[in-house]
Amino acid sequence: MSLSLYDVSVPVFMRGLTILSTLLDKAEAHASETGEPLETYLETRLAPDMLTLVGQVQRASDTAKFGGARLTGAAAPSFADDETTFDQLRERCTKTAAYLSTLAPATFEGSDTRPVTFGGGANERTLSADRYVLQFALPNFFFHVTTAYDILRHKGVPVGKRDYLGSYDDTST
Amino acid sequence: MSLSLYDVSVPVFMRGLTILSTLLDKAEAHASETGEPLETYLETRLAPDMLTLVGQVQRASDTAKFGGARLTGAAAPSFADDETTFDQLRERCTKTAAYLSTLAPATFEGSDTRPVTFGGGANERTLSADRYVLQFALPNFFFHVTTAYDILRHKGVPVGKRDYLGSYDDTST
Repeated sequence: MSLSLYDVSVPVFMRGLTILSTLLDKAEAHASETGEPLETYLETRLAPDMLTLVGQVQRASDTAKFGGARLTGAAAPSFADDETTFDQLRERCTKTAAYLSTLAPATFEGSDTRPVTFGGGANERTLSADRYVLQFALPNFFFHVTTAYDILRHKGVPVGKRDYLGSYDDTST
Repeated sequence: MSLSLYDVSVPVFMRGLTILSTLLDKAEAHASETGEPLETYLETRLAPDMLTLVGQVQRASDTAKFGGARLTGAAAPSFADDETTFDQLRERCTKTAAYLSTLAPATFEGSDTRPVTFGGGANERTLSADRYVLQFALPNFFFHVTTAYDILRHKGVPVGKRDYLGSYDDTST
């Protein structure tokens, strides 16, 4: 057995989006208990020129969405980046996962060496599909999920490494 | 073509360790320019109960090292977790990559569904090797590289997303 491009992308993104949504749940519950305004979390960034929590969730969503689309040659749905509440951020995770769930594993077959173009302007690059996943999509997706987690930890939200790692899916293959 | 367990682990870890080492170079260069004591970076953590920069590098190294070892059934080298300088952290990255480079792709063959046990005590889990990589090793590795990056960004080190993503290896397969 070996892994397909589908195996190393769609289920990984969907699992990460569920984890991200759970982190948001815990942050909202903590704010409810402490009286901390939710905006404090939503607008926090770790450096003045880094993205806020809202931005981290939007970019995690985009990386997953475009990952699925580019690997299959499908068109990705457009999301407006207009989220301002926890509910809307969770909805963003949900609709991203819903889109990914429409991508059939068979549509990924044979695309490993297909060229994938991503980035825009001076950052535009073309990589083979396998390199696109392993060198860009996965590192970038985990970057945004981790940085969302780091923002919440930095603000004192009681989440831990187990929340980031999530539960394992150990059903037989 | 499809991806082997080797493809989705060793080259990804080795690439990430090189990126981590480059981030350390840039932090050290920035400290040299600004007169900021290097200890400020080494001992920074984003929350009181998170690991410092030193700890993030050590855990990135361990995740990569044990990832390679567990997937092949090899014994991992022991590293003492006694790093206190930037040079020592880069050496940790180098010797982790050197160990990974000894693992031949052929030794990963046929191990996708082999059970892998990881964690200790109450956290001990057993997953099939493919799930171990996709649900634990990769998310955990990128967690520590990203959090090291986030710590440096939080301290004002002039690194950017391109440094985290690194250069792409677009040679033909």
